[in-house]
Amino acid sequence: MKLATIRLGNGTRAVRVEGDVLFDLGASDVGTFLAREDWAEAAASAVSAEILGAAETAQFATLVTRPSKVICVGLNYRNHIVEMGRPIPEYPTLFPKFADTLIGARDDIMRPDETSAFDWEVELGVVIGRTVRRASEEQAAAAIAGFTVVNDISCRDWQNRTNEWTQGKIWDSSTPVGPVLVTPDELPGGVRPSARIRTEVDGQLMQDDTTGDLLFDPVALVRYISTIVRLNPGDLIATGTPGGVGFARKPPINLAVGQRVVCTIDGIGATDNQVVAG
Amino acid sequence: MKLATIRLGNGTRAVRVEGDVLFDLGASDVGTFLAREDWAEAAASAVSAEILGAAETAQFATLVTRPSKVICVGLNYRNHIVEMGRPIPEYPTLFPKFADTLIGARDDIMRPDETSAFDWEVELGVVIGRTVRRASEEQAAAAIAGFTVVNDISCRDWQNRTNEWTQGKIWDSSTPVGPVLVTPDELPGGVRPSARIRTEVDGQLMQDDTTGDLLFDPVALVRYISTIVRLNPGDLIATGTPGGVGFARKPPINLAVGQRVVCTIDGIGATDNQVVAG
Repeated sequence: MKLATIRLGNGTRAVRVEGDVLFDLGASDVGTFLAREDWAEAAASAVSAEILGAAETAQFATLVTRPSKVICVGLNYRNHIVEMGRPIPEYPTLFPKFADTLIGARDDIMRPDETSAFDWEVELGVVIGRTVRRASEEQAAAAIAGFTVVNDISCRDWQNRTNEWTQGKIWDSSTPVGPVLVTPDELPGGVRPSARIRTEVDGQLMQDDTTGDLLFDPVALVRYISTIVRLNPGDLIATGTPGGVGFARKPPINLAVGQRVVCTIDGIGATDNQVVAG
Repeated sequence: MKLATIRLGNGTRAVRVEGDVLFDLGASDVGTFLAREDWAEAAASAVSAEILGAAETAQFATLVTRPSKVICVGLNYRNHIVEMGRPIPEYPTLFPKFADTLIGARDDIMRPDETSAFDWEVELGVVIGRTVRRASEEQAAAAIAGFTVVNDISCRDWQNRTNEWTQGKIWDSSTPVGPVLVTPDELPGGVRPSARIRTEVDGQLMQDDTTGDLLFDPVALVRYISTIVRLNPGDLIATGTPGGVGFARKPPINLAVGQRVVCTIDGIGATDNQVVAG
């Protein structure tokens, strides 16, 4: 199944996407919908619910509008670890984003004047479907509602101002998430999906890898993070980016106003965003 | 004025604390209450509202139960910077906490079995009272609803597993916040309060400094952070801790189950918590 959050009137609405048709899930966003214990059954039966429009013309909001936490993983593909000049890590590196950082899959990316090193990072996003703490392998797998696409936009100069990356990663309205959540049963590899992942900037291929190359896979990450803090329905984990970011190129590329960034994961979808001043 | 969030029946309730009396503010928590544009007037007139109990017997919930962001500042007192072996920074170091990390001012602190370096950090907490982005000095000062006490409990081993501190700072139900928000007009120094700040562990004084020693003061922090991302009513900034943490002692102190940690800021209040296994 594919789920999405669309803008409708003054608010947002969770929908099931079936071909080009959007079926009402009776909740304000996918995060709220996933808080229903029976969300999987409810989504499956939604093909008889009210039709809220066509996917082609839908206004996708960010997939989860108010997650209780967004946790991102750094240094999780070997080639990106090498290009950033880091050793292969023993533990996942974690940093945050906040709800106000997230935008929809087709929204404009707000590029702040305060940066001179604005960068892309395509990532496999994991959306949580049930509350877990200190999850076993089975519990972690069962807690994964599905996957989405995240473009973990980064201000590298701010990221490197101090030891802590947080301030380069949380810029307002910068980070596309969506357009849809795809449940694991639809993906090769299931809860450890193996799919081509890539970024194009103005049509030029910049990142191209497979999500099967993750050092810490989605199940391992849910186990690790839930050891530390509970994960709730609608929480989002961004699993790290492969090699090919702008910052690591020679010379580095600084994403500019007017450029278009498309991040694609085969079988899941694509974020497709224009960079604007903001 | 002093505001608090108390537990009542199955939920929580924002109150004004006037002496020993709690007056109903008609909102589920202080964060929700601060989203009212007229919160200051509404709180001032609440002394004629329904009385919800006595402060002495109140069950304080964490002050803001669902902030859109909790941003913590590292390395903001000179003596703590020196004890951690760091240079005096040009920029504030930022890292996150999440709502599920926060507990009430009298709640038990959950000490995970997974750590062997559990530590205290008394901090001046800044609670935001209006939405700001790229705030001027005046806007930043006006956006500060008031101050509270935060004990930024840290798992030092996890904090230092990777370059990013996040995973040592976000442990579930670890971080006391409260018991009250005190508005700036009640404090010497106003929006840049100058007050004694200290930690006692089982009655032994461990940290003792003044909030006037902050490298980056509350107004500067609101300006800096709001450059990056909007701040909303109920958002919380923890402004960093002075010298005297357990990790920097020789030998280091590892906070143990059964110990009691009291963090006090004069004129604001004290968190007073027992450490339990959890």
